[in-house]
Amino acid sequence: MSNHAFDLDTLLPGTRFKAGPMTLTEEAIIAFAKEFDPQPFHTDPKAAAASFFGGHAASGWQTAAVTMRMLVDSATPFAAGAIGLEIGLSWPKPVRPGDTLSVEMEILDIRPSSKAGRKVATLKTTTTNQNGEVVQVMTSKNILFGNGPAPGEAI
Amino acid sequence: MSNHAFDLDTLLPGTRFKAGPMTLTEEAIIAFAKEFDPQPFHTDPKAAAASFFGGHAASGWQTAAVTMRMLVDSATPFAAGAIGLEIGLSWPKPVRPGDTLSVEMEILDIRPSSKAGRKVATLKTTTTNQNGEVVQVMTSKNILFGNGPAPGEAI
Repeated sequence: MSNHAFDLDTLLPGTRFKAGPMTLTEEAIIAFAKEFDPQPFHTDPKAAAASFFGGHAASGWQTAAVTMRMLVDSATPFAAGAIGLEIGLSWPKPVRPGDTLSVEMEILDIRPSSKAGRKVATLKTTTTNQNGEVVQVMTSKNILFGNGPAPGEAI
Repeated sequence: MSNHAFDLDTLLPGTRFKAGPMTLTEEAIIAFAKEFDPQPFHTDPKAAAASFFGGHAASGWQTAAVTMRMLVDSATPFAAGAIGLEIGLSWPKPVRPGDTLSVEMEILDIRPSSKAGRKVATLKTTTTNQNGEVVQVMTSKNILFGNGPAPGEAI
């Protein structure tokens, strides 16, 4: 994991990172919904047309999960490990089949942890679709692991 | 969906529901993590032993997703559809391979929506393991669909 180490001291409030993009197919939306959120507006495009969403929409939990995946795959501080302590989530617009999502994360606050190689950060993570519409806003307090031992290495 | 219709007028602050249980195997934890949260403490039991978690732990996003699944499968108001508006999440303890989770949801507040057959509720949803330890606390503001047209039915 050492190759993923990240110099946390370069991170300041206002620092921003980008992650993604990732496209959600209809098949992926249905598969996730069948496993984790089998409500008809997520599992059944036809039923969804007459629903609150006015069309097929991904589970918000899928938006949260793929946002996490994009962050882990990116060159953000998450690459050396991040653990969420408190999360706030909202989904201002539905995610539709074929939407291509991308992520921007901003550091709102960052301070030393009592343990070396760790910081505690408050992050705002915004997920948008291909039209720049915000589909998820996440605020989170996280432990970030940086240029000390990464999670998974002996400490 | 009419058979899932639920009389929302029976719901009052203090009303509680139970959902679950569901057991998370090591295989399921690794599979979810590889797809959505490929950090070593979630994907690799050996690496996880030396990590912050002191052992293999499920992604918090998996805990959130299986909590949703248990709620949808249960006889809660979620059975007729629920849409999350604002979510707060915390994960006080890690979920370990083999843990059996169950859910208790409490209505903190519930009031009429401007649309018939809907209410807006503030819910506290607690996910615990087989030892009664809390692994997730979720507070949420939700639109609940009840004995009016359910989502997926023509309105």
